[in-house]
Amino acid sequence: MSAMEIESPPPPTAEEEAQLKQLYADFERHHMMPLWTQTNDLMPFTPKPKAVPHVWKWSDLYPLAKRSGDLVPVGRGGERRAIGLANPGLGGHAYISPTLWAAIQYLGPRETAPEHRHAQNAFRFVVEGEGVWTVVNGDPVRMSRGDFLLTPGWHFHGHQNATDAPMAWLDGLDIPFSQQMDVGFFEHGSERVTDYATPRFSRGERLWCHPGLRPLSGLQNTVSSPIGAYRWEFTDQALTEQLLLEEEGQPATVEQGHAAVRYVNPTTGGDVMPTIRAEFHRLRAGTVTPARREVGSSVFQVFEGKGSVILGGTERKLDKGDIFVAPSWCPWSLVAEAQFDLFRFSDAPIMERLHFDRTHVDGGER
Amino acid sequence: MSAMEIESPPPPTAEEEAQLKQLYADFERHHMMPLWTQTNDLMPFTPKPKAVPHVWKWSDLYPLAKRSGDLVPVGRGGERRAIGLANPGLGGHAYISPTLWAAIQYLGPRETAPEHRHAQNAFRFVVEGEGVWTVVNGDPVRMSRGDFLLTPGWHFHGHQNATDAPMAWLDGLDIPFSQQMDVGFFEHGSERVTDYATPRFSRGERLWCHPGLRPLSGLQNTVSSPIGAYRWEFTDQALTEQLLLEEEGQPATVEQGHAAVRYVNPTTGGDVMPTIRAEFHRLRAGTVTPARREVGSSVFQVFEGKGSVILGGTERKLDKGDIFVAPSWCPWSLVAEAQFDLFRFSDAPIMERLHFDRTHVDGGER
Amino acid sequence: MSAMEIESPPPPTAEEEAQLKQLYADFERHHMMPLWTQTNDLMPFTPKPKAVPHVWKWSDLYPLAKRSGDLVPVGRGGERRAIGLANPGLGGHAYISPTLWAAIQYLGPRETAPEHRHAQNAFRFVVEGEGVWTVVNGDPVRMSRGDFLLTPGWHFHGHQNATDAPMAWLDGLDIPFSQQMDVGFFEHGSERVTDYATPRFSRGERLWCHPGLRPLSGLQNTVSSPIGAYRWEFTDQALTEQLLLEEEGQPATVEQGHAAVRYVNPTTGGDVMPTIRAEFHRLRAGTVTPARREVGSSVFQVFEGKGSVILGGTERKLDKGDIFVAPSWCPWSLVAEAQFDLFRFSDAPIMERLHFDRTHVDGGER
Amino acid sequence: MSAMEIESPPPPTAEEEAQLKQLYADFERHHMMPLWTQTNDLMPFTPKPKAVPHVWKWSDLYPLAKRSGDLVPVGRGGERRAIGLANPGLGGHAYISPTLWAAIQYLGPRETAPEHRHAQNAFRFVVEGEGVWTVVNGDPVRMSRGDFLLTPGWHFHGHQNATDAPMAWLDGLDIPFSQQMDVGFFEHGSERVTDYATPRFSRGERLWCHPGLRPLSGLQNTVSSPIGAYRWEFTDQALTEQLLLEEEGQPATVEQGHAAVRYVNPTTGGDVMPTIRAEFHRLRAGTVTPARREVGSSVFQVFEGKGSVILGGTERKLDKGDIFVAPSWCPWSLVAEAQFDLFRFSDAPIMERLHFDRTHVDGGER
Repeated sequence: MSAMEIESPPPPTAEEEAQLKQLYADFERHHMMPLWTQTNDLMPFTPKPKAVPHVWKWSDLYPLAKRSGDLVPVGRGGERRAIGLANPGLGGHAYISPTLWAAIQYLGPRETAPEHRHAQNAFRFVVEGEGVWTVVNGDPVRMSRGDFLLTPGWHFHGHQNATDAPMAWLDGLDIPFSQQMDVGFFEHGSERVTDYATPRFSRGERLWCHPGLRPLSGLQNTVSSPIGAYRWEFTDQALTEQLLLEEEGQPATVEQGHAAVRYVNPTTGGDVMPTIRAEFHRLRAGTVTPARREVGSSVFQVFEGKGSVILGGTERKLDKGDIFVAPSWCPWSLVAEAQFDLFRFSDAPIMERLHFDRTHVDGGER
Repeated sequence: MSAMEIESPPPPTAEEEAQLKQLYADFERHHMMPLWTQTNDLMPFTPKPKAVPHVWKWSDLYPLAKRSGDLVPVGRGGERRAIGLANPGLGGHAYISPTLWAAIQYLGPRETAPEHRHAQNAFRFVVEGEGVWTVVNGDPVRMSRGDFLLTPGWHFHGHQNATDAPMAWLDGLDIPFSQQMDVGFFEHGSERVTDYATPRFSRGERLWCHPGLRPLSGLQNTVSSPIGAYRWEFTDQALTEQLLLEEEGQPATVEQGHAAVRYVNPTTGGDVMPTIRAEFHRLRAGTVTPARREVGSSVFQVFEGKGSVILGGTERKLDKGDIFVAPSWCPWSLVAEAQFDLFRFSDAPIMERLHFDRTHVDGGER
Repeated sequence: MSAMEIESPPPPTAEEEAQLKQLYADFERHHMMPLWTQTNDLMPFTPKPKAVPHVWKWSDLYPLAKRSGDLVPVGRGGERRAIGLANPGLGGHAYISPTLWAAIQYLGPRETAPEHRHAQNAFRFVVEGEGVWTVVNGDPVRMSRGDFLLTPGWHFHGHQNATDAPMAWLDGLDIPFSQQMDVGFFEHGSERVTDYATPRFSRGERLWCHPGLRPLSGLQNTVSSPIGAYRWEFTDQALTEQLLLEEEGQPATVEQGHAAVRYVNPTTGGDVMPTIRAEFHRLRAGTVTPARREVGSSVFQVFEGKGSVILGGTERKLDKGDIFVAPSWCPWSLVAEAQFDLFRFSDAPIMERLHFDRTHVDGGER
Repeated sequence: MSAMEIESPPPPTAEEEAQLKQLYADFERHHMMPLWTQTNDLMPFTPKPKAVPHVWKWSDLYPLAKRSGDLVPVGRGGERRAIGLANPGLGGHAYISPTLWAAIQYLGPRETAPEHRHAQNAFRFVVEGEGVWTVVNGDPVRMSRGDFLLTPGWHFHGHQNATDAPMAWLDGLDIPFSQQMDVGFFEHGSERVTDYATPRFSRGERLWCHPGLRPLSGLQNTVSSPIGAYRWEFTDQALTEQLLLEEEGQPATVEQGHAAVRYVNPTTGGDVMPTIRAEFHRLRAGTVTPARREVGSSVFQVFEGKGSVILGGTERKLDKGDIFVAPSWCPWSLVAEAQFDLFRFSDAPIMERLHFDRTHVDGGER
């Protein structure tokens, strides 16, 4: 838009200033606030998040989680031994972004985290370890390295560690959204998990994890995915095939050197839960992705490999387990030194369902 | 759920307490916060909004708007002479609820509010007066008493008062949602409105306001309604017919004595915009609606008639023009002394599209 | 595709011919038929309908309907005094196309056609006259010139003539589709219509015919439109506005000089019934539409005006009431001598829902 | 409905009879046919298909296919050595039902069936053998026992036998629907297949056959499934798990002893193609399914095991490879003597998308 010449009004007289002061006082008394003094804040030209880009190092996170395992019991009341990553820009809230919660949860040998359910949607991603089973609506789901697990809104769930070793993992939820938008409900369930079995595959997987096949007993679409665990072996294989197909000259990757899958609800082909998108990305060594800005926030955790992220213009080295957040409209670009595997989750379903989604990719509007 | 007996752990020793203190300090240093100290706040049993139920009196609002008309110019920068209703529970933000903005906008004789566009969705509702045209993407739309007007996200719009009398109306937007979720974009447009014509009907109405008929030039569905103005005469007629049908013993009203219509996008039959639902309710004299709790917040403005609202357990008298907000899960019930007409808007599309919607009606779960 | 040289196999020996003959006989005995002797018939390069383009003159149709009114009673058993238009290419079936049925129905003074219901979807279009009410699921719907009326699948319906003059109209159904695809169900209802009232507007109209407004008592989407009658005054007004907007230089018409509306289900914005699309087209004097080919068949009835259709390459004059059919992939073009109003219905929803739809417009693929 | 007494009109006089005769002659001359003489045929109380229930024995089909392999060349023109199963009720058409085509296709050692494409949707199901690759839009897809393969509408496809043994399989298409509804297009492709590679897995499988995972390069939904082959090992495993879950007391099967999966499009969770549904059913020994009637027709092929079908009231023994058709509304019930595996396809997507679907199950309306 071209610049515009606006004729400035004459400066107010002393009497006018007094009247204005009185007007603003009367506004306040009647719980009113003028728009004209705050337009820029309320309606910025582009998103101006309070949340800042930030990296948490696994080498900090895991030892702290372990220390809490020694000092803090897990049980009814506190419910979970989970430590939230608090975005430094969000003023003392344990929110990694205005919509998303990310935490390290730690369960000691033979411990049980009691069952409960809540309207908030939750998932787990396992960057290392094994031995815990999450029981979701009575179905025990094994947790192992590389697995992505769901506990969608209003599903009862608890955790039990069936081994003598502790285990830690990443919890992701939409707590900040639900908290700010006043949508949360919560209910306690069993003090213990309702099934201490430790099967290799959950019933949900046995019913649903057959590619392209849908049980006739499950023809009704579900709001969230009926798959309790998305196993690493499938994720790894899918990414491997994409890179092989790319080598064969076939279209399969997002962009050169960049393979990626989205975890989906098999009843719809859409996102696993109504508020959270989850993906896994693999970059060939040497790949640098073009800088992307997106409406909404994303969180990444390095699963394996070596590289860095250029986040809001600053490059930051990343090691296994490191977690970073890209707030809304903050540009991010991944740089792979070696093959680089990253888990990603975001609030994209919120943005898309409400039609606020926009993406800008350097070198081409998408 | 029945009460559970939880074996309390032994109280911590002094050494343990010191270690715990150090752990919490280390958490803070690394931008981490434990869940177990804040579960109740983060995950309440039912929504615990900071927003409170509140009534604003038109007899306060209009005079204040008028005074601002004398003292504050309208133009580029401040953009609009709009005064937001600030929920007393929301700590100094001009948010009527965590998702919704409601304001009185005031335009003096012959004034123009310049054109701009923003990602935020907006509407106007006219409780009294006429003479202003809102120009939406170049299409001038007359504003008259009882009309409901749309300026959906990223549509250019300005206002011009074509008369020698001032006019005020209700503005509704999703500013609090967009602000907290970091989704806003903004762009200035023409300093003046792009078309000073004052047609009785806008082009959008002439193309789209024929019941059950869709132009073949408009077969692509649109995110928001292509209708610029929903005229009072149609709303009034629809409500009148519902009450007449009820008298004839036909199913037509929501419940006995309670007629209601939803404003919809004719390309889909769904809500007019992705984040805002708008409805008009008419109660026969003597009707009392059962108390309702809903996830998400609603704002009502009395258009005509006499009655009150029982809001969070307290009855409050309502006169023409009065505005009240029912925060998430706060029960509300309308009481009609005489025929009672109310405009209503809410964030229900957000709740429904993200599957957080729940409703509880006294005397029956819906 | 480039021409290909196919090496011809050697001619069969006498023994091979005998074996082949025996093979074909054995096929027949076992209810088998080879593809290779009939590929061209079964899989043509483009649709090769048996149905032919044809025009029926109202000046033939109406007098014949009137004569049947004198000779044939209406009542249970025959159910309706309706005379189907039999496409000359469809070998003695009363099908105007492989999917569609079109008939002239005639009801004498004070006659009643008894109530029944069927899985088949039906509508009426009134090219002249008035005085009959169609009772649909108990709701009496007035029939007047220019009105388009629905009796969707499995809705009870009967007709009663409340006057001393006869009345005739166009019936459209999906009988040929339902008959060939074996989907029909039928049930007798009341011997008389269930309500002999003659209101100006049906209850469905009173509830639903308010542009952009949806009753809160009707939030559930319906398979077919809840509007019983689409009144001529609305259709006429919508077309008039499109042509006025075109004159003002605004996008509103399908193409220069060609206004058109589609009748839609207000709960979805989509077609009025699952198998039948209905539209109304108005051409300015002098307009000639580009030749169109479409997968699926269309039937037009001239409502008013003067012109012709070029149908499969042959121009045919059209007068008021004349009906013509354009079979699948047969090109058609309308020529308006004076302002030219045509009602149209087609099987397009079948084609689109099954993804067989294709359109070719001379001078541009759509 | 109870019987109704209808007052019979007086018998026509001779003059009236003559007039009626003349009227009917005039109808015929003007291509019109009265409804009242044919209501029962056109609008039956329940579907009255001309197609009859019928069983084809594999012991007849395969030898005949083999004989045609010796006598009939495969190549451009005839296109395929496929022998259609002609429903005895459908008067000399190679239609197994009014919507569906089923054929045995036979490809001799080292033979190639040339590439072509058509609007008709097609699949293959392999009851025995291996060694042929179907090349779909350039992607070679291995065919092996138990596999279900897709060649959706307008995809180029050819077949090549890479071995020295012949191979036969079941072809299923929507030819009768497309033929009667005039929706077919056809185009020749390469005389040879475009890729003679014989990979174990097609590119489509490598990209799409990872349960719950969607490639980011494939986020656009597709009309038909992007999976070229649904492998037997997955089908078998899914059915095995359902029966194991049933044994464990978990809900997993359709009904006691009856496991079943539907083949679906992973981009939507819906049917693989717009007109054809495909499923695989496994019954425990001793299971008898309740008699079902459905609108639309189904074809079954026995894959393995021993049993019979009660089809329209008559029990017929079934052996491996046997094919039977259940026309619309014809009751069918399966009886398993030993574990009984059946492939099934039907026109259910047509019926459901057009809202003609109805199901009646003995002992309970579904």
